[in-house]
Amino acid sequence: MTEFKIDITLTENPKQKPDFAHLDFGKNFTDHMFIVDYTKGKGWHDARIVPYQPITLDPAAMVFHYGQTVFEGLKAYHTSEEEVLLFRPDMNMKRLNRSNDRLCIPHIDEELALNGIKKLIDLEREWVPTAEGTSLYVRPFIIATEPYLGVAPSKRYQFIVILSPVGAYYKEGINPVKIAVERQFVRATIGGTGNAKTAGNYAGSLKAQEVAEADGYSQVLWLDGRENKYIEEVGSMNIFFKINGEVVTPMLNGSILEGVTRDSILKLLAHWNIPVSERKLSMEELYEAYQQGLVEEAFGTGTAAVISPVGELFWENEKLVINGGKTGELSKKLYDTLTGIQLGTESDPFGWTVKVEKQEPATLSQTN
Amino acid sequence: MTEFKIDITLTENPKQKPDFAHLDFGKNFTDHMFIVDYTKGKGWHDARIVPYQPITLDPAAMVFHYGQTVFEGLKAYHTSEEEVLLFRPDMNMKRLNRSNDRLCIPHIDEELALNGIKKLIDLEREWVPTAEGTSLYVRPFIIATEPYLGVAPSKRYQFIVILSPVGAYYKEGINPVKIAVERQFVRATIGGTGNAKTAGNYAGSLKAQEVAEADGYSQVLWLDGRENKYIEEVGSMNIFFKINGEVVTPMLNGSILEGVTRDSILKLLAHWNIPVSERKLSMEELYEAYQQGLVEEAFGTGTAAVISPVGELFWENEKLVINGGKTGELSKKLYDTLTGIQLGTESDPFGWTVKVEKQEPATLSQTN
Ligand SMILES: Cc1ncc(COP(=O)(O)O)c(C=O)c1O
Ligand SMILES: Cc1ncc(COP(=O)(O)O)c(C=O)c1O
Repeated sequence: MTEFKIDITLTENPKQKPDFAHLDFGKNFTDHMFIVDYTKGKGWHDARIVPYQPITLDPAAMVFHYGQTVFEGLKAYHTSEEEVLLFRPDMNMKRLNRSNDRLCIPHIDEELALNGIKKLIDLEREWVPTAEGTSLYVRPFIIATEPYLGVAPSKRYQFIVILSPVGAYYKEGINPVKIAVERQFVRATIGGTGNAKTAGNYAGSLKAQEVAEADGYSQVLWLDGRENKYIEEVGSMNIFFKINGEVVTPMLNGSILEGVTRDSILKLLAHWNIPVSERKLSMEELYEAYQQGLVEEAFGTGTAAVISPVGELFWENEKLVINGGKTGELSKKLYDTLTGIQLGTESDPFGWTVKVEKQEPATLSQTN
Repeated sequence: MTEFKIDITLTENPKQKPDFAHLDFGKNFTDHMFIVDYTKGKGWHDARIVPYQPITLDPAAMVFHYGQTVFEGLKAYHTSEEEVLLFRPDMNMKRLNRSNDRLCIPHIDEELALNGIKKLIDLEREWVPTAEGTSLYVRPFIIATEPYLGVAPSKRYQFIVILSPVGAYYKEGINPVKIAVERQFVRATIGGTGNAKTAGNYAGSLKAQEVAEADGYSQVLWLDGRENKYIEEVGSMNIFFKINGEVVTPMLNGSILEGVTRDSILKLLAHWNIPVSERKLSMEELYEAYQQGLVEEAFGTGTAAVISPVGELFWENEKLVINGGKTGELSKKLYDTLTGIQLGTESDPFGWTVKVEKQEPATLSQTN
């Protein structure tokens, strides 16, 4: 039994908190961060909470050159009972290790990682905003730090967690977004890194996003990399369609990110006995259904936006307007239910929320 | 006319130079580095040479999360006339900007970048190793430095150049390598980032490389991401085959990196009137030609290894042994000619080498 001790060094200069009523996404960071080092032969070591501070790396550190890095994104919510809840954080820790597998980064103990996150949030309790739609965004990430210009897995890494109080991801709130189906660029392909949460996927997506925005669309809908035919996902969300009473979402095929929100929605829909299928869905099929008036709703799902209704889809010079460009009934119900569970105002039949306990012990132990 | 001034701060603690007779690739770095900052609205500014030192970045710096980064790789050679030569550095600067386009990074003035590189090398002249097969590896790279967790192009960047005296890339030297044709993983696909020199492509390649190495192969041969059928490139090299007297290399299709060595070889072969074609080449076609005894040579090409003969190709449980596992005549001739041009011992009919002048002026000017 290894003992994980988390050393804590408190800041001597607490920051002025931002205006919680007007929070931009991902621009403000709290007073502390959680760090664990990895050294080949030694494993993960020196778990510590330190004042939020710059990372200092050799210019040859491998993350700068070969992008060996993974990340996660989850949120902590402030409840009306003055509690702080995390939403399915175990899912993020599992996905982190799946991403690690793909990127040849050593597994991190999920309990250590989660305990560090909880302890950090506990310390930053005052940074969890309370207004509707706000939350504390949690960003765990791992970077390869060995200074070496050969293309090979690094021998050294850092696992780091930073926290950012955030408002709504989309300024539009739960209002529908317009998205453009991407024809030229590809996000991911089978055999690539699409189902890992790794930096390169996002770097590669910027260009299409830039073009779409210039055309007045807020995101792109990615098609598969092999045939440019099947719907995959949207920007940083998974995608769902309600077609003729049935909810359809692209099946996990190795190039789509396995969203925690996606999984939660599938479970909620099944719980409500709403017909749902995970399968291949081509743009052609969707277009035909649209022409027959069968596409009832469309929505993206992700931690940042929770549910983001899609009001318009641009495809081959045509604007497909969905549900009159308005938020659909099911989209709204899913949004209300999910955010209700996250905030502790709705019952939590699946036991998805995890309370951040006050004053956790400084020493955590685990079994391997 | 903007004036680019390069400020120079010399180190007060010159490093002990490594043993130039036993240089590992990419592990030793010189005393100084070249840096230029970019700020949106201001452009590239503050070009400077400073002592080699750690990079200090906010933990939210976008390069860590979304991998917005590009790099280059070229070499400086020490000639018997005590000169230092660069090989086609203009090609690297052009490719850097093509990579920038794909990654939504602002163009950098190619003359500024190259002048910075030359000035830095001039300063580090004593670090250019002289023994056969050695050189000074030059690594320019750009990283997104804005601290922001939204997926969007960064508003701040740093262009950095570091230098590393290197020995041969492959311990085997010009001896043939064994490579395995990759069936499960994909490096790049059309519409993706394959033809940009960006970190994510390399991160995604580690897993296949790890598997191949465990099986005793030094590199993988990548097939295309759409059909897993057509030959693309090898590890960090382009690939050539001599089939029945004709030299064949995969055509540039958007997912293959446009190697400077590849281009140089195409020009040399044309110059020598050796039949050469850039076209689609499937593994099936290569296999059939192999069975008919028509595959005469195979070699990878890249800055690091220059020419790397392929002695064995593993494909569907079969070992294709090429030229008896030995270095082919053409491979050898290309290696000798290219390294001869690079070292200034062979004539340079294309004007490929660029001399690093001594004591360039500290102030460089250019016209836009
Ligand atoms: C590419 C991509 N797809 C989908 C999602 C949705 O995943 P989750 O619901 O776990 O946030 C994300 C992450 O936020 C993402 O980056
Ligand atoms: C993926 C890849 N292909 C090919 C090459 C060869 O390019 P060059 O000849 O410019 O070094 C490289 C770079 O070194 C590379 O990284």
